[in-house]
Amino acid sequence: MTKTKIGIVGLGLMGGSFSIALQETSDAFYFIGLDHNKDHCKEALKLGLVDEIAETLNEIKICDVIILTIPVDGIIAVAKALTDIDSQCTIIDFGSTKKKISESIPAEIRKNFVAAHPMTGTEKFGPSAAVKELYDGKVVVLCDMEKSGSYQQEVAKDLFSAIHMNLVFMGAEEHDRHAAFISHMPHALSFSLANSVMRQEASTSIVALAGGGFKDMSRIAKSSPNMWEDIFRQNKSNLLEAVYSFQSELKKCQRMVENEEWENLNKWMKDANTLHDIL
Amino acid sequence: MTKTKIGIVGLGLMGGSFSIALQETSDAFYFIGLDHNKDHCKEALKLGLVDEIAETLNEIKICDVIILTIPVDGIIAVAKALTDIDSQCTIIDFGSTKKKISESIPAEIRKNFVAAHPMTGTEKFGPSAAVKELYDGKVVVLCDMEKSGSYQQEVAKDLFSAIHMNLVFMGAEEHDRHAAFISHMPHALSFSLANSVMRQEASTSIVALAGGGFKDMSRIAKSSPNMWEDIFRQNKSNLLEAVYSFQSELKKCQRMVENEEWENLNKWMKDANTLHDIL
Repeated sequence: MTKTKIGIVGLGLMGGSFSIALQETSDAFYFIGLDHNKDHCKEALKLGLVDEIAETLNEIKICDVIILTIPVDGIIAVAKALTDIDSQCTIIDFGSTKKKISESIPAEIRKNFVAAHPMTGTEKFGPSAAVKELYDGKVVVLCDMEKSGSYQQEVAKDLFSAIHMNLVFMGAEEHDRHAAFISHMPHALSFSLANSVMRQEASTSIVALAGGGFKDMSRIAKSSPNMWEDIFRQNKSNLLEAVYSFQSELKKCQRMVENEEWENLNKWMKDANTLHDIL
Repeated sequence: MTKTKIGIVGLGLMGGSFSIALQETSDAFYFIGLDHNKDHCKEALKLGLVDEIAETLNEIKICDVIILTIPVDGIIAVAKALTDIDSQCTIIDFGSTKKKISESIPAEIRKNFVAAHPMTGTEKFGPSAAVKELYDGKVVVLCDMEKSGSYQQEVAKDLFSAIHMNLVFMGAEEHDRHAAFISHMPHALSFSLANSVMRQEASTSIVALAGGGFKDMSRIAKSSPNMWEDIFRQNKSNLLEAVYSFQSELKKCQRMVENEEWENLNKWMKDANTLHDIL
C-alpha cells in the first residue's frame, strides 16, 4: 500500500504533536518535515516526528497533504510559493488568525487550501514540546470552507476527526473576532500581569508566594514573543476591541472598590460566575 | 494517650482539607467542627472531616488548637468572642488578608493568636471540596510572629510543617501588599475577563472555542463572591495599587498595538517571559 505523504512545514509543538497523533491512528502515513532551524530538524527526526527531512520547499510539493505549522506571516509567504502543486494536494494551515490568510492565498490554489485553527497549545515550543494528546477532544475551527475544494474539505475533516477533534465551522472574520476574546486578549492580560509583577521592587518575594491562581494566569506569559507579535499584528483591530472591552470591566471593578460599592461588586462577581454555566 | 483537640470553625475547602491532611500524619488528633451552615456540618461529619459537631463557639473553647477557616470579617468577630480561652490555647486564622486581622485581635489573646495565610486553594468550596493534597508543598505565610507567644509559634510551625508546607515569615503589611499582586488583583482580572466575554452578544459561540489558556485564566472567576468581596474590602488600597500597576502595563501593550510598534511589543513580551526565570 502506498502511504499518504504528509509534509509538515514547521517542526514545533503543533506540527510535531499532529504527527504523533496521526501515527497513533494508523501507520499509513509518511512524514516529510521542513524547518529553517536545523537543530529542530535533527531533533524531529530523532524523536520520530518525521520520517525524513526536506532541504527545500520543492521536496514538500510531492506530498498529498501539506501542513503549515509556522507563524501567520510565514504561512502566507509559503502559500505563495506553492502555486505549482498537484490539483489533488491539500494544504492546511494551523494559524491563529484566519481572515488575512484566507484572503491572501493565491487564487490558483485557493481550492487546495483549508484554513484551520486548532484551539489548543501549551506555552512550550520546539519539537521536544510535542505530545500525542495535544489535539485530543479539542476544538478545531475550520474557516471559509466554501472556498476550499470539496475533496480538500473531506481530507481536512477526516484528518482532524481521526485525531479526535471537535469540528466547528465559521467564517474567517467571525473566527478572528472570537479568537481575539478567547485567546489573543487573554495572552495580552497574561503578559501584562507578568510585567506588572516583575516591575515591582519586591518581585522575587512576591513571586515566592505564588499559588495555583497566579501560576495559571501567568502560564501563557511564557509564550513565544515572535509568534504573538505576529498574531497581534494580524488581528490588531479585533484584539484592541477585546482589550477595550476587558478594560471597561476592570474599570468597573476598580470604581466599585474605590467607592466601596460592595453590594454591586458582589453582584458583578456573581455575573462572572455565570461563565461557568457555559464552560 | 489524650488526643490533641483541634477545633475547626468553618467547614469548607480550607478547614476540611486541613483536617484530612493532619489525619494523614497521625491519629493523635480529635476534630470538633463548627459552621453556621447545618448541611455543611452534616456533610463534614459524614465525610470524616470532623469527629463531632459543636453547636456553639463555647464548645470549641476547650480545644488545644482552634483553626479559623472563615471569611476575614468573620475571623475578627470570632476572635473577639474567644477572649476567655485557656492561656495555652493556640488560635490560627487562615484569612487571605492579614494586617486588619493582626491588629484587631483583642490584646488579652494576641499571644494565643497566629496569623497565617496558606497560599493555596481551588475555586471550589464547601466540605465536599476538601482534598488531602491541598497544602502539600505549598507556601504558608506566617505574619507578625513576634506578636504570638513562643509556645503558639511552635504549635503553628509544627502543624504546618507536619502537612508539608513551606513556611515563610513576613510582616502583615508586607504580606498584604504582596498578596494583592500575587492573588487579589489576579482574581479581579479573572472576574473582569469572564464578564467581558459574557457581555458579548456571541458569548456562547466565543466560549465554545475556549482552549487551555482561557480555561486557566477564567478558572478563578468561579470563586465565591462573598469571600472575595470581603478580601477586596479588607485589602482595598493594596488591591487598587496592584490594579493600577496592571492597567498601566496593559495600556502600554494597547498603545504599542495601536501604534504598530512591533519591535517594542516583542521586547515587552520578552520582559514578561522573564517571570518564569523565578517562578
